[in-house]
Amino acid sequence: MKHSYLMTPGPSPLLPEVKAALGRDIIHHRTDEFREVLKEAHEGLKYLFQTKNPVLIFSSSGTGAMEAAVSNFLKKEDKALIVMGGKFGERWKEICESFGVETVPLNVEWGNAPISEDIEKLLDADSGIKAVYTTLCETSTATVYDIKSIAEVIRKKGLLCVVDAVSGLGQDVLKTDEWGVDVVVSGSQKGLMLPPGLAFLSFSKKAEKFLEESDLPKYYFDLKKASKSWEKNDTPFTPSVSLIFALRESLRVIREEGLETRWKDFGKMGRALRSALTSLGFEILSKSPSSSVTAALVKEIDTASIVRKMRKEYGISIAGGQGHLKGKIVRIAHMGYINPSDIVMCLSVLEKVLADSGVSIEKGVSLKAFQEVYYA
Amino acid sequence: MKHSYLMTPGPSPLLPEVKAALGRDIIHHRTDEFREVLKEAHEGLKYLFQTKNPVLIFSSSGTGAMEAAVSNFLKKEDKALIVMGGKFGERWKEICESFGVETVPLNVEWGNAPISEDIEKLLDADSGIKAVYTTLCETSTATVYDIKSIAEVIRKKGLLCVVDAVSGLGQDVLKTDEWGVDVVVSGSQKGLMLPPGLAFLSFSKKAEKFLEESDLPKYYFDLKKASKSWEKNDTPFTPSVSLIFALRESLRVIREEGLETRWKDFGKMGRALRSALTSLGFEILSKSPSSSVTAALVKEIDTASIVRKMRKEYGISIAGGQGHLKGKIVRIAHMGYINPSDIVMCLSVLEKVLADSGVSIEKGVSLKAFQEVYYA
Repeated sequence: MKHSYLMTPGPSPLLPEVKAALGRDIIHHRTDEFREVLKEAHEGLKYLFQTKNPVLIFSSSGTGAMEAAVSNFLKKEDKALIVMGGKFGERWKEICESFGVETVPLNVEWGNAPISEDIEKLLDADSGIKAVYTTLCETSTATVYDIKSIAEVIRKKGLLCVVDAVSGLGQDVLKTDEWGVDVVVSGSQKGLMLPPGLAFLSFSKKAEKFLEESDLPKYYFDLKKASKSWEKNDTPFTPSVSLIFALRESLRVIREEGLETRWKDFGKMGRALRSALTSLGFEILSKSPSSSVTAALVKEIDTASIVRKMRKEYGISIAGGQGHLKGKIVRIAHMGYINPSDIVMCLSVLEKVLADSGVSIEKGVSLKAFQEVYYA
Repeated sequence: MKHSYLMTPGPSPLLPEVKAALGRDIIHHRTDEFREVLKEAHEGLKYLFQTKNPVLIFSSSGTGAMEAAVSNFLKKEDKALIVMGGKFGERWKEICESFGVETVPLNVEWGNAPISEDIEKLLDADSGIKAVYTTLCETSTATVYDIKSIAEVIRKKGLLCVVDAVSGLGQDVLKTDEWGVDVVVSGSQKGLMLPPGLAFLSFSKKAEKFLEESDLPKYYFDLKKASKSWEKNDTPFTPSVSLIFALRESLRVIREEGLETRWKDFGKMGRALRSALTSLGFEILSKSPSSSVTAALVKEIDTASIVRKMRKEYGISIAGGQGHLKGKIVRIAHMGYINPSDIVMCLSVLEKVLADSGVSIEKGVSLKAFQEVYYA
């Protein structure tokens, strides 16, 4: 009889309209009816990505689209600068190296955001670098990067700017065309309120030149093939029909509410949550906190046990730390279908679990702090 | 108010238990609860694939697993024999060539099955060939290949035998371990009664050696990484949680009914349907007809118009031809959740559409023919 709440930074809870769409009968994908669904989804994605360029849909995890962003735009023995400030920066490096691309890291302390001047210096020092791979929201540290400034530096040099927006899209501001971001990738199970299983990739006119010259092997994630199909509201391989029905619903709701409204609301949720966690004596990990997820350092206690107790005893799933932050932080998502009242509920259980673990706190202190900021 | 029926060889209709599972709330994937779901799915897949070896799950279309079967087992400049008897044989060739693998084709007339002696001759003539890529059911021609004999020829030479069982699995007999098939790939949207979006790949002990030596680039479809996770009932990247919930349901039902029973029943459905289509004056395309789908040549009339009328006027989706068979054949699926009564209903509408198109047929002739064979 216990409720279950999903407050992890992906998967995040499903929109009711999404659940209804998932349970419906399937139709054949090479029909006018399905092309109409794809067309609507394509339009909605352009709005979400803030671009006039194509946004392709892959049946895969977000990592599939990240691979596509490497294998389709680079050549053998190309060199790429990777912003390494967390687990998903590392993923760019691993993918590049799997494809024989040489990587130049910009090491950023976990919890910090990269400084665009540091990127500029590295690019000045090495004229062989062809592309920069970075992240909108580094989920492992709950840090948002200043993509606008980063993109400007890259654009001035005529290089390719690639952004992993898997967890940030929909909450953290991203203006793809206005900021001159060339390639943006994302996934379905975060801001889009869908199950995992779809990935997305938008690419600019400038990126087309890189695409033409690329000679790395690809087939399933071949963007040339995918773009050709995209023009006809089609896909090269059988698409995830059920997930795409659900995608259309999610995009409708996002559009109805409006991105500006959502950006503001998630920003406020983040600020209120940071105030609440600070009131519990936690330290906010990030120097540049994201609007999609919040990470806080907890000193007195192994956070893995907090995460476990919250899930097992109260049905609330939050996340712990990854890499060297394992056991040291809690991460609470505010993305997609997560509402402020969900966060209040989560905080109330967090207080109880902390008290049970012997941490002395004043009852309701974090709830008060949240209310004071969110409902100011 | 019109019913819709999906009689295409993928996607095929969803099992009711699958639809219910798809619509449920999502949970986090790094939990004991989800590992239990994966464990059950892994066991069910072993049964379906008739193997004791691992069967890995990818979030992708079947083509993703086909790519994995190339990029993980071959080396740069390796040579592979491809059985080319239809569209999906061609797909093996395209994938191999995308990865720089040299291909030796065995050209088989569309509608025919390859003869294992012809494969043997090609292997004898070229000691450089390292693997053979073939198909269980070539969906484009509705032809089942004699995998047992083919695998034996390949095994004698110590080469790698790779089978695309995307559309055949569950209807056409495949005994992976007993026949010594090294690698089998499949997808979710055919015999498994699921939406598209999951792909599967099993590999033998022998294939492990090829895996060790492979140097082709891969990341998302990296089998070494996937195998390591598989051992812990986990996945390297966020899996399609909703589809995997649904997969567990589908595998339960298949196991309950039993593969032997299903193989027999689909075989009988195929025989009855062939008799029915013959009674309408159609010619069965395949010399080795599959138990998953039936293709028939229609001489008097462009089959694209039959397919269109059946869908638009009666809500029944069947398939036409691909490649040079476009407009010349109809293809009707008998796979997954398709029942004999669905085929009867489909035939009744086919008779009506033929009559409307001016083809003279005796009313009910194909229904009678179907009943006589299926309920003999």
